[in-house]
Amino acid sequence: MAGSNYNGYCLVYGGVGALGSGCVSQFKAANWWVVSVEVWKPTVEPDEGATLIVLHKHKDIVSQTVNVEADVNILIDTSKSIQNQESELHEAIGSLLDGSLLDAVVCVAGGYIQGNINSDFVESCERMWVQNMWPSLLATQIASKYLKAGGMLCLTGAKAALASTPHAIAYGFCKSAIHQFTKSLGHPVSGLPKDTLTVCLLPVTLDTVMNRQMMPNADVSGWTPTKYITELVVKWARGEDRPANGSLVQFVTQNFNTDITIL
Amino acid sequence: MAGSNYNGYCLVYGGVGALGSGCVSQFKAANWWVVSVEVWKPTVEPDEGATLIVLHKHKDIVSQTVNVEADVNILIDTSKSIQNQESELHEAIGSLLDGSLLDAVVCVAGGYIQGNINSDFVESCERMWVQNMWPSLLATQIASKYLKAGGMLCLTGAKAALASTPHAIAYGFCKSAIHQFTKSLGHPVSGLPKDTLTVCLLPVTLDTVMNRQMMPNADVSGWTPTKYITELVVKWARGEDRPANGSLVQFVTQNFNTDITIL
Repeated sequence: MAGSNYNGYCLVYGGVGALGSGCVSQFKAANWWVVSVEVWKPTVEPDEGATLIVLHKHKDIVSQTVNVEADVNILIDTSKSIQNQESELHEAIGSLLDGSLLDAVVCVAGGYIQGNINSDFVESCERMWVQNMWPSLLATQIASKYLKAGGMLCLTGAKAALASTPHAIAYGFCKSAIHQFTKSLGHPVSGLPKDTLTVCLLPVTLDTVMNRQMMPNADVSGWTPTKYITELVVKWARGEDRPANGSLVQFVTQNFNTDITIL
Repeated sequence: MAGSNYNGYCLVYGGVGALGSGCVSQFKAANWWVVSVEVWKPTVEPDEGATLIVLHKHKDIVSQTVNVEADVNILIDTSKSIQNQESELHEAIGSLLDGSLLDAVVCVAGGYIQGNINSDFVESCERMWVQNMWPSLLATQIASKYLKAGGMLCLTGAKAALASTPHAIAYGFCKSAIHQFTKSLGHPVSGLPKDTLTVCLLPVTLDTVMNRQMMPNADVSGWTPTKYITELVVKWARGEDRPANGSLVQFVTQNFNTDITIL
């Protein structure tokens, strides 16, 4: 990456999902250098025994865990402890950047489990913690080490978790934790590099191919286009129209029209 | 316990700490049958190889993990997985109750770590999750199985976590998760027994022996006496003056005078 003519450098944690690949595309359209971090799936990747793979852009590899638009793909083994994942990410990113720093770290990785306390509850809580909090914590650690002063850290919450979520209890309290975490990160003594902007995206339902397939009869006029969100993310990453530090940015779509409300 | 003349049956999760032992005393003063659940410390307890110990009231055993006022002490091994702890607790409590049900489950177990994201952050997050969320989740699972209709589940949050907590980031987001969890549990479809009251205690600083020792020069006029809180807990457990289901109950003390605010 050194000496290149990119407009910025960013890392997208969860770069293959609907929102993540949307971010990667939008950053590439803005001529940024982009790293995608995703979950390594042993059945998909051919490298036996590999636990952390840094794949430089390689058009021939198309799998569900690699984003071919990204300049670099980092695949992590989520069966390892968070401490192991942290040190492997640290090593991989440090070696990639080789002294350079990132302008933005965007974490859109997460998972959803429906259910109240009677539905394999303790198991669901552990899964939601690992799928939602771990990526947020790891992205934050990456930001603390490799973000430029004045850079951006963007996390992902959920508008639903601003109130009770009795139909998705474990999901709700993990997202709520990410909201409060964002508020703490937005404080000058959080430990992030000077003048970092930390924001959290709070979507409702995204208008994605998968959601259209899973809910074929739903009214999509209230679903938020991912592009609406990713355009804003890139704008903020460039330093334009930034919300206040620690903001929770709600996206509400009605009649195909999206508005944001900032908490 | 069967056939006894107690006014009620309760379980206090974390029954040896300042707030927990206060709850046990208050429930005993009201002539309730009380189980204390605490962390088993291998260096303290003599039973070698024991992982879950149910000790019926035994005045001879005095250790930091046994509450001698409680009718029964259950000691859990927190080095085990949450799933293991859950099934061991389930077995122990089911056998103790032998078909009876509890009127109240009160979880006051928790832990605190100061620090922003630069202070062994990932490690702190794991510890705060295990020390604060696990007891709340396990107490909730006990309530779901052994609480009477119309019983009470009381969890413990922190007033500080209603806003940002940049000086105690991991602690703050875990307590915030407990707040949102309480809101979900307060909903009729949460999965708790019919008409359960779920509330969450949000203290600031408690006036305890340990806090007075640790902060000898502090102004204690803003510290909340544990008795103020435990008297209310017992009142609610008896069905008197209950706040709305899902309430976050803040305790704010000024000039030695405590007021509650309900969110």
